[in-house]
Amino acid sequence: MSENALSSMPRPPYYAVIFSSQRTAHDDAAYGAAAQRMVELARTQPGFLGVESARGADGFGITVSYWDSEDAIAAWRNHAEHAATRERGRREWYAGFDLRVAKVERAYGRSVPATPARADAP
Amino acid sequence: MSENALSSMPRPPYYAVIFSSQRTAHDDAAYGAAAQRMVELARTQPGFLGVESARGADGFGITVSYWDSEDAIAAWRNHAEHAATRERGRREWYAGFDLRVAKVERAYGRSVPATPARADAP
Repeated sequence: MSENALSSMPRPPYYAVIFSSQRTAHDDAAYGAAAQRMVELARTQPGFLGVESARGADGFGITVSYWDSEDAIAAWRNHAEHAATRERGRREWYAGFDLRVAKVERAYGRSVPATPARADAP
Repeated sequence: MSENALSSMPRPPYYAVIFSSQRTAHDDAAYGAAAQRMVELARTQPGFLGVESARGADGFGITVSYWDSEDAIAAWRNHAEHAATRERGRREWYAGFDLRVAKVERAYGRSVPATPARADAP
C-alpha cells in the first residue's frame, strides 16, 4: 500500500515507526480486518502523517508509519484499542517482529501518482 | 527478506535508509538479478548493518537498509556500480519511489529466528 506518501508529507524532520514482522499462518481473515482497522484508526490520530506497507508471499512484511512528533507516537502507542490489537498480534499473528522509531532527516523521491484504489487499500 | 535484523544490530543510534517503490511490469528477471547483486554488494560496504525488504503482489515494496553512520550512507550512495544500477532502476524498473534517511533512536522486538534460507534470500 502506498498513499503517495512523499508528496503529501511535510518537509523533514518528522518521525518514522518501522515495523518489520513475520506473519504466522494463523487466521488471515481476522488479521486482515484488524490491520485495516488499525490503519483507519491511525489516520484519525493527531500527528499522523501517513503509512506505507508491503508484505511478500513469504509472510515477511514492513509497515512504516509517519508522525509529526514523538508525542504523537506515544499517544498512538497508548491508544487503548491499538494496544489491545497489538497484544493480540504479538500473541497470534506474528512469529517475530522488530520495531524501530527513527527521525527522518532527509527525504526525496518521485512518488507514484495516487489512485483511489491505492489510496483506499488497507 | 529478513536477516533477523534486530538481534544482529548494535544499539541505537544508527541510520536507516527507507526506500519505498512501485515496480513497473518491466523485466522482472533483470530486476531480480540486479536487486540481489545490490544486496550482496551492500553487505561488503563499510558501515553496513543489515537490510530488510518486502514487496507485495501489487508491486509496491519497502526496503530498509541500516548503516552505522551518515558517512557510510554517503559512500554507498556514491559507489559506482550502485549508482549505475540505481539509475537503471529509476529509468526502467520503478514507476515511482520515495527515499528517506532517518536516524534510529529506539529499537525493540522479538526477532524471527534466522534460518539459512531466510538469511540467504536476496
